[in-house]
Amino acid sequence: MEMKEYIERNRERFFEELFGLLRIPSVSSDLSKKEDMVCCAQYLANLLKEAGADRAELCPTEGNPVVFAEKTVNPDAPTVLVYGHYDVMPVDPIELWDSDPFEPEIRNGAIYARGANDDKGQTFIHIKVFEYLVREGKLKHNVKFILEGEEEMGSEALSKWIPQHRDLLRSDIMLVSDTTMISDKVPSINCGMRGITYMEVKVTGPDKDLHSGHYGGAVVNPLNALCRMIASLIDEEGHITIKGFYDDVIDLSDEDRKMLSRAPYDEAEYKASIGVDDLAGEKGYSTLERVGIRPCLDVNGIWGGYISEGSKTVIPSCAHAKISMRLVPNQESGKIAELFSAHFKAIAPEGVKVEVEEKHGGDGFLIPISSAAYRAASKAMEEVYGIEPVPSRGGGSIAILAQMQRELHSDPLLMGFGLERDVIHSPNESFLIDQLFKGMRSVALFYDYFQDTL
Amino acid sequence: MEMKEYIERNRERFFEELFGLLRIPSVSSDLSKKEDMVCCAQYLANLLKEAGADRAELCPTEGNPVVFAEKTVNPDAPTVLVYGHYDVMPVDPIELWDSDPFEPEIRNGAIYARGANDDKGQTFIHIKVFEYLVREGKLKHNVKFILEGEEEMGSEALSKWIPQHRDLLRSDIMLVSDTTMISDKVPSINCGMRGITYMEVKVTGPDKDLHSGHYGGAVVNPLNALCRMIASLIDEEGHITIKGFYDDVIDLSDEDRKMLSRAPYDEAEYKASIGVDDLAGEKGYSTLERVGIRPCLDVNGIWGGYISEGSKTVIPSCAHAKISMRLVPNQESGKIAELFSAHFKAIAPEGVKVEVEEKHGGDGFLIPISSAAYRAASKAMEEVYGIEPVPSRGGGSIAILAQMQRELHSDPLLMGFGLERDVIHSPNESFLIDQLFKGMRSVALFYDYFQDTL
Repeated sequence: MEMKEYIERNRERFFEELFGLLRIPSVSSDLSKKEDMVCCAQYLANLLKEAGADRAELCPTEGNPVVFAEKTVNPDAPTVLVYGHYDVMPVDPIELWDSDPFEPEIRNGAIYARGANDDKGQTFIHIKVFEYLVREGKLKHNVKFILEGEEEMGSEALSKWIPQHRDLLRSDIMLVSDTTMISDKVPSINCGMRGITYMEVKVTGPDKDLHSGHYGGAVVNPLNALCRMIASLIDEEGHITIKGFYDDVIDLSDEDRKMLSRAPYDEAEYKASIGVDDLAGEKGYSTLERVGIRPCLDVNGIWGGYISEGSKTVIPSCAHAKISMRLVPNQESGKIAELFSAHFKAIAPEGVKVEVEEKHGGDGFLIPISSAAYRAASKAMEEVYGIEPVPSRGGGSIAILAQMQRELHSDPLLMGFGLERDVIHSPNESFLIDQLFKGMRSVALFYDYFQDTL
Repeated sequence: MEMKEYIERNRERFFEELFGLLRIPSVSSDLSKKEDMVCCAQYLANLLKEAGADRAELCPTEGNPVVFAEKTVNPDAPTVLVYGHYDVMPVDPIELWDSDPFEPEIRNGAIYARGANDDKGQTFIHIKVFEYLVREGKLKHNVKFILEGEEEMGSEALSKWIPQHRDLLRSDIMLVSDTTMISDKVPSINCGMRGITYMEVKVTGPDKDLHSGHYGGAVVNPLNALCRMIASLIDEEGHITIKGFYDDVIDLSDEDRKMLSRAPYDEAEYKASIGVDDLAGEKGYSTLERVGIRPCLDVNGIWGGYISEGSKTVIPSCAHAKISMRLVPNQESGKIAELFSAHFKAIAPEGVKVEVEEKHGGDGFLIPISSAAYRAASKAMEEVYGIEPVPSRGGGSIAILAQMQRELHSDPLLMGFGLERDVIHSPNESFLIDQLFKGMRSVALFYDYFQDTL
């Protein structure tokens, strides 16, 4: 039976199982959800066991458990390691959701729920393909799954767990569906991702909140100071001003830039899709380059002073911000964190104290498009989508993959089936059912062709 | 009986009555507290009635009711109008309070509660002096009280109510205790206050929250944009950059500056009292000038993006800030609000939309220190404190007083008994019992001397 037919026969069961997974509010950054994290990991282990894994278990880490599963068919056959994550982003602002983020709903051909795409929906693709291959007697590879519960907060626990489990994770290729493709008309395969350094800063002025009338004009207001410091981090041309920030950035050759520019890009459509009249960024680069091959710096959150209804005339004691930088090869996240800390403290005006904390980080990476795995994926997706996928560069980060590539000597292959319209991390995250099923068909074919090309 | 003895005999009752007042959580900016506002107004009307007012009632306004009370002893005698307010600031950050803000506690000779000083404690002074004068048969003036419930949010309702009640409020002098003195060793009388213009801004970029990996570098992040815009509002020398902002500022003469500089000021003590190592402000002016005779601009609150525990890689759709400016004579609040709006919209980068809203405003004012009322207050305070009060300039604003001065042709007299240590508007607001009682004695003597000097 082809995967297509298998999907048709099991369609309702697939929805039931996926919806059960989506109903678990596994928000990793919310410490009150610890039990939900374990519950979610157990749910996945059960799915993997039922799908036919020899073993499927929860492995304790310093943080949320890692789900590990494997099925060995032939010690000499190549081993595919599927990576995914079961944690999801917070749901706020909750009031902008059209339906309960943890009660999945189908509307206009898409499943709406937090995690519908990122990464429960995309992980589910691999579990069901695995089930199909086992039950239809088609499994020719050894398959392993490693599903973590802290990707959205930087994979710190998994990062420490990996060096102790190198043998367990030994594999020939890491298969990952946690990214997007350009569009369902223009399938693409990510051949590189950016790294990330995520910082939190606190600027403290007076040791208590002050009346802004009594002190206004004479005391350094930490809110004004923080704004000034943040504003100075990017210059008029869109360059980041942190000393040494660009030292390790690999500039792409004109040839490489030309290849990437082949990806279709409609500026009017891009702007309309996010509701802006104008785009801006680093001078001298196109939009796709700005999000693909260039680093950037964004404030992800800022708060301080009186932020409720009405007005309060206060100079607050402190101001806070979360600031992240996206990195490109060859930048090292740890080094960037140090450069940021030193710079941010150096630019603090007199009259305030600055604390800087690194929240998480990870390096970017590149994937050779000449590899057997890339070619197998390309062939599989071409068959399903009717068009050869474009190699692209993803702007996002999967911090852990660079480390796994380095420590396990296994290249990641990013078969992402998300679309921008899915608005992952935002209210009303969704995943098109068509993409879910095309993803399953593509991955099933990948196993076919990856076999062929060995 | 002297006021001092009256206080001693009634001390416990005074505390009971004041504590009852402080227990009412009359936070005007919190719309869920509407009933508490009315309850608080009624409590004050009852106190005034019991103290001996001919009439004491709640007058409806567009917002919270105004408490009006009066006692006429002689149509030919001068009339003193006491102004105060019964609304208080919000209590957040609540976790920094050492005791319940609405359950007053006496510690180290001070009453701790929201409103202990501002302005319930200071208003209570006048009610009890009035009671004393009536009961001891010493009242020689006609006395009126106007106590409002929206001072902390700009007195909008009272501002509209005044023009319709000019006759009711007719008076020869407005007596106000809603400010501080320099210290209990250096009593002072405010002879001017700053005005205020309080704005709220919203900067909107994309029409939804975006994943900062997918879009970071190519899209104008409203948080970065807001920081940049705010940073540009004040230049390197501490001057406000809004076009036309200083046009109407009256520069003080060297003589006036010299007089104000006589106020004692210990920079080390000032810095220690608020826990900062350095001060900063407009170039060319001293700290006391920066808070007294110069305008300023402060961010009072800022928020946007992900501000909870952990980290979220988001470019938020919008960013918000509350920004207020303190004004000096001859700046007009309404004009400054217009200048700010136009300027803030003009500096918005392409790729974001800006909304600006005026929250409230009021002009500054000056009080002639040669007046009979000022001289009576000075004499009274000298007798109680043993030292002649210094004329000073208050940095805060009582927006409504400039309007009342203009419309009622009655000068305000600011006998403030607060101290900086009271940290009004902050957690652990308090009021020294010694200042409470010295305030009562000073005000009682004021009525004596104000009589004498007529």
